[in-house]
Order: sequence, then C-alpha cells, then structure tokens
Amino acid sequence: MNNFPVTELRCALCHKSYHPGEVRYTCPDCGTDGILEVLYDYKKAADSMRPDALRQAPKSLARYAPILPIADPANLPPLRVGGTPMYQPKRLREQLACPKLYIKDDGQNPTGSFKDRASAVCVASALDNHIDLITAASTGNAASSLSGLCAAVGLKTIIFVPEHAPQAKVTQLLMFGATVLKVRGTYDDAFELSMQATAKFGWYNRNTGFNPYLLEGKKTAALEIWEDFGYRLPEYVAVGVGDGCIIGGLWKGFKDLQRMGLIDRLPKLIGVQAEGSSVLTKAFSNGDKVIPEPDADTYADSISVGTPRAAAIALQGVRDSGGFFIAVPDSEIMEAQVMLAKYSGVFGEPAGATPLAGLRRCLQEKRIDSQAEICVLVTGNGLKDINGAMKSLQASAYSIDLDPAKLETSLQELAIV
Amino acid sequence: MNNFPVTELRCALCHKSYHPGEVRYTCPDCGTDGILEVLYDYKKAADSMRPDALRQAPKSLARYAPILPIADPANLPPLRVGGTPMYQPKRLREQLACPKLYIKDDGQNPTGSFKDRASAVCVASALDNHIDLITAASTGNAASSLSGLCAAVGLKTIIFVPEHAPQAKVTQLLMFGATVLKVRGTYDDAFELSMQATAKFGWYNRNTGFNPYLLEGKKTAALEIWEDFGYRLPEYVAVGVGDGCIIGGLWKGFKDLQRMGLIDRLPKLIGVQAEGSSVLTKAFSNGDKVIPEPDADTYADSISVGTPRAAAIALQGVRDSGGFFIAVPDSEIMEAQVMLAKYSGVFGEPAGATPLAGLRRCLQEKRIDSQAEICVLVTGNGLKDINGAMKSLQASAYSIDLDPAKLETSLQELAIV
Repeated sequence: MNNFPVTELRCALCHKSYHPGEVRYTCPDCGTDGILEVLYDYKKAADSMRPDALRQAPKSLARYAPILPIADPANLPPLRVGGTPMYQPKRLREQLACPKLYIKDDGQNPTGSFKDRASAVCVASALDNHIDLITAASTGNAASSLSGLCAAVGLKTIIFVPEHAPQAKVTQLLMFGATVLKVRGTYDDAFELSMQATAKFGWYNRNTGFNPYLLEGKKTAALEIWEDFGYRLPEYVAVGVGDGCIIGGLWKGFKDLQRMGLIDRLPKLIGVQAEGSSVLTKAFSNGDKVIPEPDADTYADSISVGTPRAAAIALQGVRDSGGFFIAVPDSEIMEAQVMLAKYSGVFGEPAGATPLAGLRRCLQEKRIDSQAEICVLVTGNGLKDINGAMKSLQASAYSIDLDPAKLETSLQELAIV
Repeated sequence: MNNFPVTELRCALCHKSYHPGEVRYTCPDCGTDGILEVLYDYKKAADSMRPDALRQAPKSLARYAPILPIADPANLPPLRVGGTPMYQPKRLREQLACPKLYIKDDGQNPTGSFKDRASAVCVASALDNHIDLITAASTGNAASSLSGLCAAVGLKTIIFVPEHAPQAKVTQLLMFGATVLKVRGTYDDAFELSMQATAKFGWYNRNTGFNPYLLEGKKTAALEIWEDFGYRLPEYVAVGVGDGCIIGGLWKGFKDLQRMGLIDRLPKLIGVQAEGSSVLTKAFSNGDKVIPEPDADTYADSISVGTPRAAAIALQGVRDSGGFFIAVPDSEIMEAQVMLAKYSGVFGEPAGATPLAGLRRCLQEKRIDSQAEICVLVTGNGLKDINGAMKSLQASAYSIDLDPAKLETSLQELAIV
C-alpha cells in the first residue's frame, strides 16, 4: 500500500492520533462513538487538486484519489459513480422566488442514491485489503448501493435491514445478489446486530459512523459542488439528515478543500430533518445533547433514524459552518417532493426532497436571504420508493372509455378541453 | 427557423419527398403507415460531427445539433439526457464467455429510460414551434419521460395509457404534473385514442412511428455508441424490440454516420423480442408480412406490443444491417435480468434485460461469434418496474431474530457462516 495517501486517523472525541495501519474502525479508547477523522498530506495533495489539474482529469471519483483512502484507484468499481448533474431549475426558482437555487441530483448515481459515493470507496478499500465480504445495516439505500457496486466487482455482501424496509429497496439488493437478513426490529436494531456480526465473524463493515472511510466517499459530493460552481462554493448547501453521515461527509469535503488552500469561503450547511425524526435538530438547540428517540418515524424512510450514529460530526460541522438544523412535517416533505418533480423534472425520493421542504420553510420564515446562492442536494431517486411518492401525490389518473365517439365528452367532463 | 437543419422529409413507403414546412407527421399520400425519414445536408453537417470537433463539444445532445430537427438547441430541456455510461462488464463477460461484451446503460437517463432521448427532441421541437401542449400514448416510459422533460420547461402533457400500465410508471408521470388518461383497453387502444385526440384537438403528438422527429432523438444513442467505441462501431448491437422504434432509431443514427462519411462499417442489429410479443420476429422470417397480434403479452411490459407502429423501418433496418430478430421466452428474460444485475451491477427493467437474454440464446445456438464486439443496450431502469423484478427473483430475504445470542445459530442455519 505504498500509494495509500492517508497519513493519520484522528479521534473526533479524544483527538488521539493513529497510523492508518493501526486501527480499522473507531478509536480503541473511545469505543464506537470515537469516529476517526481521516487526514492526508494536504500540501502534497493540493497540487493534483487544483482546478487546472482537475479540468484535465477523467470524470470519475478517481480524480480525487490524492484525498481518498484508496491505495489503488483502479479498485474503484467500474460504474459511473458521482459526476451527477447540477441543475439551475428555472421554473422551480420562479415558483420559490429563489433565483439562485441549484439542484444537485444524486439520484442519478448508478443504484439511484448518494450512497454510491461511500460504497465505491468502501469497495475499493476492501479490494485494496484483499477482503471478499462486506456487511452493512441500512434502511435501504446504503445496502442496495453496496450490493450493486459489489456485484460489479464480485464481492459478497450480507445486509441487515429492518423488517419494514420498503420492498422496492429490498428487491433491488436481492437482484444484485446480496444475502439479505431482515431483522425483526428497527433500523437501530439492524445496525446493532450488524455490529455484533462484524465483531464475531470479522466481516468488513460498511456502516457509516463506524468505518471512517465511508465519510471520505461522501465528501466527494462536496468536491463536485465546488467544481460545479466553477471552483467556488455557494452560500448555502441544504441536505436531508437522518444519522448525520451525509452532512458530516459534505463538511469533511469542504474542510479538506480549505486545508488544501483551494477555497477562501466555506458554505453554511442547512440540515433538514423530518419532525418525526429530528434528534439532531433538537440537540442542536440544546447544547448538542443527543437524546435518542426509539420511536422516530417519518414517511421519508431514508432519514427515519432514532439514534443518529454520526451525531457529533454532524452537529459540529453545521455549527462550524454557521448553518443550522430545521425540522419540517411530513406533509411539507410530500409537497416538496411533488413541487420538485413538477417544476424541475427531478423525481427525488422523500428524503431527497426533504432539503427543498426545509428551504421553503426557511424562505417563508425569512431565515435565509432568498437572493443567496443555495444548493439543494437530492440524495435519492423517487423510483426507489414509489409507495412514498404515491402518498405525496394529490393528483390521480382519469379513467376514460375506449369509444372515440365519447372522447370529446369525456375530456370536456374532465375540463381538459 | 433559419437554423433548422432538416432539408427533406421522405416517405418510407412511396419515397415522395416533402419540405419540412409542408407536413408535420406522416406522408399525406400514404397515411399513418407513411413514416417520414428526416434528412439533412450531410456534407455540411459532417464538418461539425468529426471526432476532433465532437471531442471539444459539451457533453449534451446539443453536440449533435447539425443532424437534429431542432432550430434552437437551447430549447433542449435542461436535464442530463444521453451521455449514458458504456460499461465493460468484466464478470458478465466471464459468465457468458463473451470477452468483448459492452453494456450501454440508458436506464441512467433523467427519468430512467432511453425514451428521454426522443422526448428531449420532441420538447425542443415543440418549443421551436411555440407549442404549449404535447400528447402521447405510452406503456409508461415514453410518457414519464415526456412528462419529466416537459416539467423542466413548463409544457403541458396529456398522456393516454392502457389501464394496466404499472403503477410505478403512472405515479412517476403524475408526479411530473401530467394529465393522465387511463384508457379501458390495451396499449394499442390507447395509441388509437391519442391519435383521435391529436386529429380532433390539434395537440402536438409525441407518438413514435407517427411524429418523424422522435426517431431523430432515438438515433442519438447510435451516435454515442460510435463515440463510446472511439469513433468506430462494434460488430453487433442488440436491443429489445416492441413497436420497432428504438431499433429503427438506432439504424437511422448509424446510417446518418455513413452518409456523413464518418464510418466505414455498419453494425449488425439484433432485435430481441419476447416470445409472447414477437410480431416483428415472425414477420422477419415471413417476407416482412406483419400480422398484428392483439393478444400480445409479455411481463417485459415496455415491449408488449401487438401492433408494431414502426414495423417497416425496423424490418428494413435489421435486414440492411445483416442482422436478425430473435424471440425469447419470458423465463429467459427473467434470468437475464437477474444475471445483468448480479454480474454487472446494472439493474435494468425487464425490457432492458431482454437483449441480454437474446444474446445468451444466440451464443448458445452459436448464431454469433462469442469473440465478436457486442454492445447490449439497456433501455430502462429496473426501479421503474419493481413488480417485474420481483417476478424475476428466485432469491428472497431471510428473517432473523433480534436476539444477538441467536445470531450465530441463525446464520449457521442459513449456511451463511
């Protein structure tokens, strides 16, 4: 692993530093809460990460290899992960009176979610280390993502899911050949059981908030936002928040850009949660005191989390950025999902539309300037959860007769002509 | 429309030539069977379509503007249509002993299907002509595609679907704000009714095999295959076939490349149908005699078509290419869908996996050389039809207890450890 660019793993709690060969998951002193931050030789990395170098590089995650925990970038799965489109949605901007709104559609990743970024790095890391089996617990997206990318390279996957995971997501990962274990319990229960299995059988674990390298995959979205904006950053980045790993990953990406001296301003992070699953929003206004809520529930299943695993880094990141958390009711997420599709052509899953719901609320409450540059990150494809979309829909199809003679009458009755 | 590059519309049946301003849909002399071929000043177009020019051009369909029926390329919808990934699936190649197999994943288009290419051109054409409403009949993909791209630009859509269209597809187009009319009948019935409505109300019609410009959008996949292969073409291109428009569009693209003098060899087209919906396969071995089958049915709903609208161009294209049609049973499509996902990480809808089923059969029957370069075009994302995927799956999830003490026993019982 001569080319492994990680120089240090540093505990987020006790700040003790480890060599990357010393430890695989969390800080041995602090236990599972001691998430390790992955650090690099930023001075050296900066050379390959300057705009002029990146403009020449092929459009794949390998372009960020100098600050990824991968020894051999050829071990990244051969699917088009990242490089997702950044849209300037004219009609949605008009609808919200928010003229500098941007949508980054991460639902366009190979398996339909942002999680492909983290899975890609996890797969490469496993291949670097000659590991042939990866396990994870997931509400769905991380699992299908891991399974899909493992299918492309031939790694085995064992996935722990809560018993009420949407069938569409379970089907997707079975199609990819994963072994799926439905745990008779919640996401948190599935997570605990996967941790037990990791400890017991020595499987490689993909759980974010545990495996430090996953966050490094997630940060690639931040690096792309920087590139999409022409090597600068918008004033706000809004994203849906469940366990805090995505927003934590984004913050890590922005911080790394700062460490390399490539930006002079960091964006403010807006973490948007569903009211029914808003542990971090409450903690943020309560001295960062995290109180798990085992009954957390929202129809935006990808962010339905009672025990946020990456609470510390999410809270710290949002605070350092000068941003904030906000919680919105499911009814507003449903409206945002329809609005996003109807006015931009981007069909996001409920959790993917959640930051738009938060943005609407912020604009209504004048918490942010409507003229600011705002990037909304859509983290999952609406096709992943058709049942969720059906709940959001107010509209329905009209049934009409086959008889052409009745066509005009039918359409008149429906007020279409 | 000074910059409108179309020079001529030529009837596929009687070969009569029209000026593009003269006629909007099919040949007035031949009626709805007289599909018009769209022609350009190929000598002039060739300059902008040479590899050195294209290498510099932005990655959007606008790069092909010199041979697209669009006056203003800025009217193309602002979503990432086309530019889909071309994979070299190592494990799938091994599985099939087909070392030069390529997968082009058009399920990665914005609304999840190949049809976005045609819809993009349709939307641009409507905007060119100051039209504000588009109608179509569709089994689902063309409709959701049209609705999504219209949502991005603010055009109204009225969609006729058969009453048994999968709910996932109907939901997607309702999310995009389309008016959906469920016709109490088949796809063919929905098509007829949409044609009646077009004639009666003067709506702009997106139906392929009727609106000549749709095929021009579809041909962009052929142009991309040429680019993906480094400005040359593979020996075979295999694709699923329902009404014949996709394969007809591919052939038009390859022919246009030939007309511009940019290729010296055309690929052989393999049109793969489901046995239950194989009108064109039968016609191909029966002197091109097309006998509609009103009871046509396959679980691959996107290619379940009893009256193929583009029969003439599909049959002619496949014949001219030196290729052939082949029909496979649904059971083999199901196997191919699982194989595609499991060994490449590409989750295609049943119709999208159909060409892979055809390829397997061809390899088994030694109808094609397993060492040849073969491109399989996956035309739709598996997430669009989770019910279809569930039929394909042999595997299922295992339920396990929450009790960590039972974990090892449970996993042993399942032969996982």
